[in-house]
Amino acid sequence: METPLKYAVFGAGSWATAIVKMLCENLDEVGWYMRSVYIKEHLLKEDHNPSYLSSVEFDTAQLKLSNDINDMAKWADVLIFVIPSAFMYSELEKLTADISNKTIVSAVKGIIPESGLLVGEHFHDVYKIPFENIAVIAGPCHAEEVALERLSYLTISCADTKKAKAIAKNLSSDYIQTKTSDDVIGTEYAVMLKNIYAIAAGIAHGLGYGDNFQSVLMSNAIREMKRFIKKRHKMKRNINNSAYLGDLLVTGYSTFSRNRMFGNMIGKGYTVKSAQMEMNMVAEGYYATKSAHLLNEQSKKKTRTPIINAVYDVLYEGKNPKKVFNKLTEKLD
Amino acid sequence: METPLKYAVFGAGSWATAIVKMLCENLDEVGWYMRSVYIKEHLLKEDHNPSYLSSVEFDTAQLKLSNDINDMAKWADVLIFVIPSAFMYSELEKLTADISNKTIVSAVKGIIPESGLLVGEHFHDVYKIPFENIAVIAGPCHAEEVALERLSYLTISCADTKKAKAIAKNLSSDYIQTKTSDDVIGTEYAVMLKNIYAIAAGIAHGLGYGDNFQSVLMSNAIREMKRFIKKRHKMKRNINNSAYLGDLLVTGYSTFSRNRMFGNMIGKGYTVKSAQMEMNMVAEGYYATKSAHLLNEQSKKKTRTPIINAVYDVLYEGKNPKKVFNKLTEKLD
Repeated sequence: METPLKYAVFGAGSWATAIVKMLCENLDEVGWYMRSVYIKEHLLKEDHNPSYLSSVEFDTAQLKLSNDINDMAKWADVLIFVIPSAFMYSELEKLTADISNKTIVSAVKGIIPESGLLVGEHFHDVYKIPFENIAVIAGPCHAEEVALERLSYLTISCADTKKAKAIAKNLSSDYIQTKTSDDVIGTEYAVMLKNIYAIAAGIAHGLGYGDNFQSVLMSNAIREMKRFIKKRHKMKRNINNSAYLGDLLVTGYSTFSRNRMFGNMIGKGYTVKSAQMEMNMVAEGYYATKSAHLLNEQSKKKTRTPIINAVYDVLYEGKNPKKVFNKLTEKLD
Repeated sequence: METPLKYAVFGAGSWATAIVKMLCENLDEVGWYMRSVYIKEHLLKEDHNPSYLSSVEFDTAQLKLSNDINDMAKWADVLIFVIPSAFMYSELEKLTADISNKTIVSAVKGIIPESGLLVGEHFHDVYKIPFENIAVIAGPCHAEEVALERLSYLTISCADTKKAKAIAKNLSSDYIQTKTSDDVIGTEYAVMLKNIYAIAAGIAHGLGYGDNFQSVLMSNAIREMKRFIKKRHKMKRNINNSAYLGDLLVTGYSTFSRNRMFGNMIGKGYTVKSAQMEMNMVAEGYYATKSAHLLNEQSKKKTRTPIINAVYDVLYEGKNPKKVFNKLTEKLD
């Protein structure tokens, strides 16, 4: 029998905690890197993450906890990154270990703001990881429902189907159903774009648009997503699969989504700065909006993206949300 | 100049009332047939429908009210039917006037239970209306939001594009945006099927499934709807347009949808009979489930419909919702 591959999760937010929980259902040992010494100590003493999904109790004998990103990167074979995209760049600056032979899995829900690259592209460019060793975990999945063990579905994408299946198997359980896909780029873009559409849904809600408009917005968003992704990476994909449409819906309809909440505040009249200060964080979709807009504008393969453009105009051009969305409504159908 | 066509709405529920309001934005006179003498008298005295959307105030000078279906059918050129599908058959038994030259518009959200026919098919078969004189009004649109004049989008389908455009124009206003389509059969099936999926969403919610599962269910539902409609009427259509996906979402995500509420009660353990008695009405999707299931089972062009089958098994075969949905989860992805 082969020695089983060693899995490590990098990050200690709610989604990272949920993924550690999933892996603990299947593996004897799970590596878990976190920046915070406090969280590590708390986990060891109290068996739960003090900051996120604190109802989830871990058997710490199963966990290999570390505050050293390089130690953990050397130890593990499969490195699952679950760090907010805004902190990825600074975290990765610490990563000096040779990881060129490792399998990299991104569960980062966005784009790296400093480089404008998808996480997979970043690892490929900077760490010379071949694309067949790069995978993506996509929802639709609120971490909170994983904590409650409510049935959820994940899609694991990798150009190497065998690898996708192996990762999927280690994430599966009574309450996690998985499927695999070979559309790494498409799922990464979907994960990023849905956050922009969630901001749009929030802005619309904040401006007083109702459920009828929300459904039209989502119906237009999935068509826009399809066009956008097709221009970036043309292949046969069903945009209505759970990894694309499902993920859009779980985010766009969630009143807990931070992106939707951020948009809602903008719609209600907050400035971008004050909304970010009030939320004490930057929503992933904020960076995604800039990157997606830039990618499309600079591309020879430009496509029609009225929703992304509207969100961009509001967030980056200081345009009046009410006027921008008023114009947007004419472009939807 | 041509004499403008005379429009009449048949029905006095919330959707009928909303459509009368839309027409009043554009026409000098709008015909309105209702069975209830009381509602007619109340409208004349108090300027609003006492039972539905009572916040909407009408200028009764603009309304031609009648309790006689044949008088109204003779008077009007464009007959818009907005009667719950369960009462269509008995209402139409009264209709003896010759309407073979009229334009028939269906805003009925379902199938005629007694015949298993789509409303358009029924008018074609029984009243010899040619298909180019049959149109359908599809959402996504909660009537309550029309009352509030919140921006909503409608799709008007007719094989005759000119007719579709004329009807669309008379429904359009500041708060109603319209588009046209030539997919009458497809939109009628979509309107019917979405109610089944809303029941499924309700059952899942009643059984304790969460938002992650709901988004997977909707993602599978739109794919199932696409397969089903394609088998019934093959043509080029984008299933993600508002009339299909949008309408599915506004119903499937609405906690006010009667179909979703009905499903929720079933999921929580009510029997079909007791849920219907408790709600004091029969949800459209109840009949739609039987018809859609039958259509698919008896057809040579059978397709995979795990969600419709699951709802059918629960509603008509007395199967245990928990067990049925447990099995269903394995068939979704």
